[in-house]
Amino acid sequence: MAIKLYDLAGADPEARFSPNCWRVRMALAHKGLDTETICWRFTDKDMIAFSNQGKTPVIVDGDKTVVDSWAIAEYLDEAYPDRPMLFDSAQSKAHGFFIKTWTERVMHPGVIKQILLPLFDQLAEQDKAYFRESREPMFKCTLEEFGADAEAALPGFRAALQPLRMTLAEQAFLGGDAPSFADYIVFGAFQWARVSASRDLLEPTDKLVSWRQSMLDLYDGLAASTPARAA
Amino acid sequence: MAIKLYDLAGADPEARFSPNCWRVRMALAHKGLDTETICWRFTDKDMIAFSNQGKTPVIVDGDKTVVDSWAIAEYLDEAYPDRPMLFDSAQSKAHGFFIKTWTERVMHPGVIKQILLPLFDQLAEQDKAYFRESREPMFKCTLEEFGADAEAALPGFRAALQPLRMTLAEQAFLGGDAPSFADYIVFGAFQWARVSASRDLLEPTDKLVSWRQSMLDLYDGLAASTPARAA
Repeated sequence: MAIKLYDLAGADPEARFSPNCWRVRMALAHKGLDTETICWRFTDKDMIAFSNQGKTPVIVDGDKTVVDSWAIAEYLDEAYPDRPMLFDSAQSKAHGFFIKTWTERVMHPGVIKQILLPLFDQLAEQDKAYFRESREPMFKCTLEEFGADAEAALPGFRAALQPLRMTLAEQAFLGGDAPSFADYIVFGAFQWARVSASRDLLEPTDKLVSWRQSMLDLYDGLAASTPARAA
Repeated sequence: MAIKLYDLAGADPEARFSPNCWRVRMALAHKGLDTETICWRFTDKDMIAFSNQGKTPVIVDGDKTVVDSWAIAEYLDEAYPDRPMLFDSAQSKAHGFFIKTWTERVMHPGVIKQILLPLFDQLAEQDKAYFRESREPMFKCTLEEFGADAEAALPGFRAALQPLRMTLAEQAFLGGDAPSFADYIVFGAFQWARVSASRDLLEPTDKLVSWRQSMLDLYDGLAASTPARAA
């Protein structure tokens, strides 16, 4: 029986833009597990009320429900140890947690600055008021004000990716010769931008482009097959 | 026979301040290997000419010479696989390489800004001209100009440590329940500041203080036993 993934979408049900849901999509493919994604919008709280919280990703595997992308990765390695591991040791997972915190602290704020306004345009109508009301207090300004200086912030965002660039100059993936869940965490941030925004966050000459392309090519082009607004 | 480590020092031969040498000191202790450190100054190029390059750390293990802290860690795990591993899998090492690039790209420039002038004062007289001539072209200004705005840069440096703080809020060490070479890489940057500069880079309330203290306590207080100018 396929594992069900509740997967955030825009007005276009195929526009699956959530970075945290992409972590899980890629992780399920890494494990070689049959997956059924269920289109979910921010305001579909009732649809995932059974998970006792209001955000995606949520997976349902038989009678087991798991929320939060990191917890889902841990669950998949525990439940399916005979499948390729997302983390191959406790130490590797601990190091991967630093890559997670770096991604969420450095990459995500940089990406959201770049994509906020085009992402907002792509949301389902019923989600727009929710998004504005929940995000504006976080940003302490209107969405339009927050997105206004995206252009000026782009060089700083690209510079902040330098540790990633230096790492991927020496190894094919963050996980080494093969992708680990750390690769899916970082890739999720790029996929968020690819699906939501017409601007490519990377310059065409950026060394990260080839790693990103490798990620798009994985699992028969799983991530590439989702409609993109950007590269 | 003890492994010899050529270890950078200031005018005080006990002032061992090099972050990259500290990575190796801690790694040798982690492996439980007898170590003899040899006091070395920047201008003692002849003393390590046998290594075919001019920087420390250099280790000599019997008839084997290894340079560069990362290569030394790899060597120690390969040569002594029966001792506690610095990296317990290839994937863990690959993830650790990201922590290395982050440390060198984000932490080291931030630390050097804070400690440059007091560090320069601590150098052996014969090293001062070398240090000035080699560093000023890198900084594209005099040492005094580079160090002048340390105070203004400190809040930004502390903010940039947030991924570290978020990680160590969830686990005892970067390596998980026990330190890995990634912990020694990050700790090396703090030890550089502790030995060189009178200013503590962390506020006393910083959650990183307790992790740093754990690192200072390891191996019977190895790192704590080196004379400190700061906490």
